[in-house]
Amino acid sequence: MDPDEFRRAGYAVVDWIADYWTMLGKRPVTSQDPPGTVAAALPASPPEHGEPVEAVLADLDTLITPRLTHWQHPGFFGYFPANTSGPSVLGDLVSSGLGVQGMLWATGPACTELETVMLDWLAGIMDLPQRFRSTGPGGGVIQDSASSATLVATLGALHRASGGRWRAVGIDRRYRAYTSTQGHSSIEKAARIAGLGEDGVRPIEVDPETLAMRPAALRAAIEADRAAGDVPAIVVATIGTTSTTAVDPLPEIGAICAEYGVWLHVDAAYAGAAAVCPELRWSHAGLEHADSYCFDPHKWLLTGFDCDAFWVADRGELIEALTVMPEFLRNAATESGAVIDYRDWQVPLGRRFRALKLWFVLRWYGVEGLRAHIRTGVALADRFARRVAADDRFDLAAPHPFSLVCFRLRAGDEASAALLARVNGTGRVHLTHTRVGGRYTLRLAVGSPLTAEEHVDEAWELLASAASDVLAG
Amino acid sequence: MDPDEFRRAGYAVVDWIADYWTMLGKRPVTSQDPPGTVAAALPASPPEHGEPVEAVLADLDTLITPRLTHWQHPGFFGYFPANTSGPSVLGDLVSSGLGVQGMLWATGPACTELETVMLDWLAGIMDLPQRFRSTGPGGGVIQDSASSATLVATLGALHRASGGRWRAVGIDRRYRAYTSTQGHSSIEKAARIAGLGEDGVRPIEVDPETLAMRPAALRAAIEADRAAGDVPAIVVATIGTTSTTAVDPLPEIGAICAEYGVWLHVDAAYAGAAAVCPELRWSHAGLEHADSYCFDPHKWLLTGFDCDAFWVADRGELIEALTVMPEFLRNAATESGAVIDYRDWQVPLGRRFRALKLWFVLRWYGVEGLRAHIRTGVALADRFARRVAADDRFDLAAPHPFSLVCFRLRAGDEASAALLARVNGTGRVHLTHTRVGGRYTLRLAVGSPLTAEEHVDEAWELLASAASDVLAG
Repeated sequence: MDPDEFRRAGYAVVDWIADYWTMLGKRPVTSQDPPGTVAAALPASPPEHGEPVEAVLADLDTLITPRLTHWQHPGFFGYFPANTSGPSVLGDLVSSGLGVQGMLWATGPACTELETVMLDWLAGIMDLPQRFRSTGPGGGVIQDSASSATLVATLGALHRASGGRWRAVGIDRRYRAYTSTQGHSSIEKAARIAGLGEDGVRPIEVDPETLAMRPAALRAAIEADRAAGDVPAIVVATIGTTSTTAVDPLPEIGAICAEYGVWLHVDAAYAGAAAVCPELRWSHAGLEHADSYCFDPHKWLLTGFDCDAFWVADRGELIEALTVMPEFLRNAATESGAVIDYRDWQVPLGRRFRALKLWFVLRWYGVEGLRAHIRTGVALADRFARRVAADDRFDLAAPHPFSLVCFRLRAGDEASAALLARVNGTGRVHLTHTRVGGRYTLRLAVGSPLTAEEHVDEAWELLASAASDVLAG
Repeated sequence: MDPDEFRRAGYAVVDWIADYWTMLGKRPVTSQDPPGTVAAALPASPPEHGEPVEAVLADLDTLITPRLTHWQHPGFFGYFPANTSGPSVLGDLVSSGLGVQGMLWATGPACTELETVMLDWLAGIMDLPQRFRSTGPGGGVIQDSASSATLVATLGALHRASGGRWRAVGIDRRYRAYTSTQGHSSIEKAARIAGLGEDGVRPIEVDPETLAMRPAALRAAIEADRAAGDVPAIVVATIGTTSTTAVDPLPEIGAICAEYGVWLHVDAAYAGAAAVCPELRWSHAGLEHADSYCFDPHKWLLTGFDCDAFWVADRGELIEALTVMPEFLRNAATESGAVIDYRDWQVPLGRRFRALKLWFVLRWYGVEGLRAHIRTGVALADRFARRVAADDRFDLAAPHPFSLVCFRLRAGDEASAALLARVNGTGRVHLTHTRVGGRYTLRLAVGSPLTAEEHVDEAWELLASAASDVLAG
């Protein structure tokens, strides 16, 4: 494809996306087609001779788009948001066009340096502790996801807890990881990948009201493990748990980690974005105790997946844990010690130029634009929660400090599950569920920049009406 | 950014990329600016108020692009290629615009099914063993990189070698991984991440001529470890090693793995693409013994990073190793057992719709277009190697079955290193180095679709001329 063919086809794809976004609100949010529909409609092998882009776009319209869950839809309220925006798409497009590999500083100097500066910019507008800024011994990097951030933090923690032995001998003791019963499944997965096993993860009980970790229970678990000869390696605390956006008490947890010399990683995958707003920074109190911290601009900060922003207080420790230096990667810049090679901060070797999409987003929206986006989400969630609270068939299941509302029918689990199925079946909205205190609970998470009051109101009306049907049946 | 703003700005970015590709050959391949140049030129914080896209594109031209290593440049011959193409960029642009999360089938049915079909398409045109097709117990998935593929294979191998214990208890024995001394650094990194430690990786000696693994040495290492009570878990064989594109003897290695019940992973990150050409499939002989296999369409198959194609012979085993099921991800489709949830095939939870770029590439080029691209690379490398062989100041350091040529000056390491520095200093080409048999060796890897005979000839002329200077000095 020569540059002029690319230009023509590129305009067509840009138009396709603009049209998709324009009409998105009129589509069903999810597909009702059974498994195998797409696969059955595709040929068994690729064409022998090339085809024009128009043919692929036509199939995109008929085969693919109707069988998607539309995450950017204004009626998508499932999971946590994973939103993108025009400037993010454009920054990523530039990245695709440049096709630069940022594994080493030398393989893309501007790719590395823009990333360092973008993470400093984010740390600045979120007022993160100085220890995470690149001007000191810390610094930030883009990971693909909070799952990978947790894994990388776990590896740094093992390196530290072993006194450096782990690099050579691996797991030769029972290292332990701690998180609340509300911690994300990626914490168990990271521990499993790192060779700690499921037994290596100690679930710490939470306060039944706030659903936040109980520091006393954490201390007791660490003490018990130490008494058994096990090695406490890492505590993963959460700002904004996945089920209900609970906030663990970092000041107390941080003090315990400091006392026992345990690495503290703070997972703020979804709720971290809230820290761009001064009035929501209470959620980050105590973060100065953390050895590492991450949040996902690709969740609630208008930057397309994948973009997890991960910071460490001591980058040297992380690099020591992860670096491997084969001859074919040796280069003068690395040996000078004056540069960052981000391959040593992550699992993979290769890496895209992901800082570009952050740069485009931060400059297009400006700080005030990002704050407006967060505040809109919080206000819409609050608007929805007030409807729920005013209807005595419903209960709010947990506090809603951010843009997630957890609620259920007082009639019980079966009714709540039936309500979810019924409202999702309309195709107008998509919500997901969790369990809170063992009870089936619906979650409505606001995040799409397309979501406005009318969509939240429609969601409520659909729920209220479906509740009548469910409770009548 | 509303759809019409996106349309206007999108055209501008498409034009920017088309112009970049048009003028790319006239740029220096690398930047000569010292570390910190980009960071120093950027402001300390993002703007308070938003800025137009034009302002960002202007800074892209003045600040960023001049300080890149241009991986798509026709004179880029470093490392292995990491090339993209117009259709790949467009497929990825659609993915960015859709902003779909493919973690579960339910969160993007077409995202999952297109991926399964694309991996079957690739398996078909490469004539991969039937065991890797999704129609049987195996199947394929897109990983970000071969590093992650090796890690995931290692986890599957640990699950198997432990008889299922590993999920619960982690690393409680000395599991061992085997690869040749020419194996990629990501194998050591995967073993370290998985908790085996550097000691857990056994480097197996190679034939000094072919640089391929010696099966007898592999057998001896496995026997020695078993005798010591260690548990051989995985052998990573390579088709196309990073230093010299050596090909390990899979039939013999496969037989040994079968005898001892060890997982065989085959890493064909770069050279796997060659299997689209029937005349290069000799390199894949014996692959039917492998438990897993990967190659990178993002290296030599015109698909932008990240796109590693990874197959397993038994998907159930891999899923068992990696799955974690929290309440908030439960859904009817998963519970039906009729769908694939690709989150269970990889480290992260979230995932982009990366199958789109493969779909665009496979359809735009067709099978014959992909074969033509591979054959061009092989022919250009051979053309270059003939120049080297005809100049008695130079030696070829290894066979060149694919598109990589390894060579050095007979005058020794210092002269070869000086030659590399001098020729890269011209800014017209970029080569990297390795060591072969302990000796400093230059590598010229062809891969860019922009690279033609004139560029390879220019590279040779620059090298021949620089050699005269080096040898005279």
